[in-house]
Amino acid sequence: MERKETVSLFDTIATLLENKRYTTLRDILTTMNPVDIAAVFEDIQSEKTAILFRLLPKELAAETFVEMDEDTQQLLIHGFSDTELKEVIDELYVDDAVDLIEEMPANVVKRILRQADPQTRKEINEILKYPEDSAGSMMTTEFVILRPKMTVEEAIKRIRRTGIDKETIYTCYVSASDSTLIGIVTIKTLLLSEEDEVIENLMETNVISVNTLDDQEEVAQMFNKYNFLALPVVDRENRLVGIVTFDDAIDVMEEEATEDIQKMAAITPTTDKPYDRVGVFETYLSRIPWLLILMVSATFTGMIITGYEDALAASSAVFLTAFIPMLMDTGGNSGSQASVTVIRALSLGEIEFKDIFKVIFKECRVALLCGVSLAAVNFLKLMLFDRLVMHNEHITVLVAFVVCLTMVVTIFIAKFVGCTLPMLAKKLGFDPAVMASPFITTIVDAISLIVYFGIATALLHI
Amino acid sequence: MERKETVSLFDTIATLLENKRYTTLRDILTTMNPVDIAAVFEDIQSEKTAILFRLLPKELAAETFVEMDEDTQQLLIHGFSDTELKEVIDELYVDDAVDLIEEMPANVVKRILRQADPQTRKEINEILKYPEDSAGSMMTTEFVILRPKMTVEEAIKRIRRTGIDKETIYTCYVSASDSTLIGIVTIKTLLLSEEDEVIENLMETNVISVNTLDDQEEVAQMFNKYNFLALPVVDRENRLVGIVTFDDAIDVMEEEATEDIQKMAAITPTTDKPYDRVGVFETYLSRIPWLLILMVSATFTGMIITGYEDALAASSAVFLTAFIPMLMDTGGNSGSQASVTVIRALSLGEIEFKDIFKVIFKECRVALLCGVSLAAVNFLKLMLFDRLVMHNEHITVLVAFVVCLTMVVTIFIAKFVGCTLPMLAKKLGFDPAVMASPFITTIVDAISLIVYFGIATALLHI
Repeated sequence: MERKETVSLFDTIATLLENKRYTTLRDILTTMNPVDIAAVFEDIQSEKTAILFRLLPKELAAETFVEMDEDTQQLLIHGFSDTELKEVIDELYVDDAVDLIEEMPANVVKRILRQADPQTRKEINEILKYPEDSAGSMMTTEFVILRPKMTVEEAIKRIRRTGIDKETIYTCYVSASDSTLIGIVTIKTLLLSEEDEVIENLMETNVISVNTLDDQEEVAQMFNKYNFLALPVVDRENRLVGIVTFDDAIDVMEEEATEDIQKMAAITPTTDKPYDRVGVFETYLSRIPWLLILMVSATFTGMIITGYEDALAASSAVFLTAFIPMLMDTGGNSGSQASVTVIRALSLGEIEFKDIFKVIFKECRVALLCGVSLAAVNFLKLMLFDRLVMHNEHITVLVAFVVCLTMVVTIFIAKFVGCTLPMLAKKLGFDPAVMASPFITTIVDAISLIVYFGIATALLHI
Repeated sequence: MERKETVSLFDTIATLLENKRYTTLRDILTTMNPVDIAAVFEDIQSEKTAILFRLLPKELAAETFVEMDEDTQQLLIHGFSDTELKEVIDELYVDDAVDLIEEMPANVVKRILRQADPQTRKEINEILKYPEDSAGSMMTTEFVILRPKMTVEEAIKRIRRTGIDKETIYTCYVSASDSTLIGIVTIKTLLLSEEDEVIENLMETNVISVNTLDDQEEVAQMFNKYNFLALPVVDRENRLVGIVTFDDAIDVMEEEATEDIQKMAAITPTTDKPYDRVGVFETYLSRIPWLLILMVSATFTGMIITGYEDALAASSAVFLTAFIPMLMDTGGNSGSQASVTVIRALSLGEIEFKDIFKVIFKECRVALLCGVSLAAVNFLKLMLFDRLVMHNEHITVLVAFVVCLTMVVTIFIAKFVGCTLPMLAKKLGFDPAVMASPFITTIVDAISLIVYFGIATALLHI
């Protein structure tokens, strides 16, 4: 695997840099993938980064620059002369330039825009107008446009002439004179067709596109569903304004999955940086809000116990507290299973709000099966192990029944709450992932205690 | 969005099918994307599926067939004549044929293999030899091979002649006469170069490849890291045996993310079917094992409480049980935050086992910050609200101190356990995701109780 090689190569490169063996360094770097070179740059000592960067051929330099983290990029830009900066900017695809600008502080942005040529600057500013996380902000404006009346020969000539600056030439877009998108044609089709064939006879006219304002998560889902290489982005009048390529969609997919996972674990997603590049304080800030909220909510659970304390002590039923962790945990786990499954299904577009009753019906049946199985195991364990083997005289058949009935009811409520809350959240425009395990657990904890003490009061007269 | 259209179109198609309006149906279907047609097939009444399928033009029929779920595929194959089956099989790419075969029961597999032409059958059998979830089992054997001495003109001619059956023609592979992979060249490079240029001068020789036995998760990570369209698969002698295309890698990414999420929520991943296609009993089976394991482990937590019951009752300290839910929940949540973050970072390749001390050091500092903040809030709440406002006379400064000290220690241990266990699991060859929230919560529950009662015994002399 290449990844491991990067690691061992790093020491070699560091030593060569130390010894100023620039020709050898250049030879090594030019055989590497930009992603791996960028990783080396991120690890290298700061003052040496600029020297190393100047060794790279122009195109490779730009490709590497795009793959670096923002700290390294900023460091490099700081050291660049205006000419060097212009050279890098000129080589960037417009969508990469936009990504860069979105990450940089205002003074650096001004410098970048000043160095960009007027056409690029205009395109960058167009894309910057779209809301963050929209299809418009993900797209690039560099793609191949063909006309319906062109022949294959003309089309290929056009691609040869203009293709060098395009992010992809594999899907070409056919637009009418008013810029409306009327079809797409792949380079595969072009190459496998006769040279005098006309584009409008070859193009796919049933084009799936996204709107500039569509959410990036929806865009990523389209890529996942249809396996596109690129997806055209149109404005409200169906005019073609850009394309989103699959590499950006893959990034969004990973980002959204990470965000969902973080929210499910009560972490506020604040950054898309990898684990080893997030500072301690930043990590603390992303974790403390939910811990605080959940701690305060858990005190309510405590208050429920407090409410029953005297009753428990008076009727010598303190031993009932020993079942609290098991009932709470099982309820919490059952609830998370339902909520996490539903959240993931919502996020992959497998279910929608209109399916809520189907989902509830299914979860209730699963809850019944789980509840009855667990209660049965638990009843046997209480009767055979605790009573017979351990001679725990508190455990009567009635006590075991109270515990097991609580379990069935708790699991039922947990699964119900677990599947309903995320769907309601989605309907109300909140992110369903926030309704995941910890939140559900806290609600289910309180409910399970109320159920437990309620049943115990009724049947054991505590 | 196209997805919503599929839904409203479905009724139209059902009605047309009912009324036998086959010409209209054909016209509608041929304007649709195979993915959307497949969705219609999955929803249509079973006996009508075959009629509808016969309306599709041959190539579209095969593309649609690939996108269907296995139940619908099996239903169709059952209704196919041998000639119809052969037609579909001939149109499939080899990797799709392999996917199909892996899902079908043995008798259907035999029928499929009998209809495949000898060359395809040989290739299918080759791929079937590789272990499930390996790069070899994901790959296709249909790709464009070029020779180093070819000119661009010859290469393009070859692509035109053979490209129709290849899954991708956008990346072409250059191999020596012994099949060793020596370079890659994209069709973009070919089209933008002079016709008499020789391939070996154009090709990229620093090729990143995977081995046939590499795990599919690693393969997906490579796509995510390098943004490839396709990745060559080589055997141990560096001979090119196949390629993996990005669409398969995207599927693996989504699948792996779903699996991780399921494991984190104590669900045994048993299926990659979408939520609405998994039966109640199947769902039950995937959820009950962990619920059972965790329920049994939680009884140990209960036993800890039982162990302290008499002491609590004797020293009128039963009120201390009211803090148990808060301490356990906060510990559990802190632990999940750490474990889930580390699991995700491991799964994206951001950290490795060798980083374990760096990770522990970071998590400990975060734990300290979180612990002290939460303890401070809690101390104020106990002193100001419970004591002053609610006149709860149990709450002395010493009691508040015991609770807050337990909180700091518990969070510290929770974060430590939460980040260490997944990394150890990875090192030992287990899936780190299993070490997520529910498992950590159960361990942390027990630890927090031991810490709590330990501190309470020492300071409050219960």
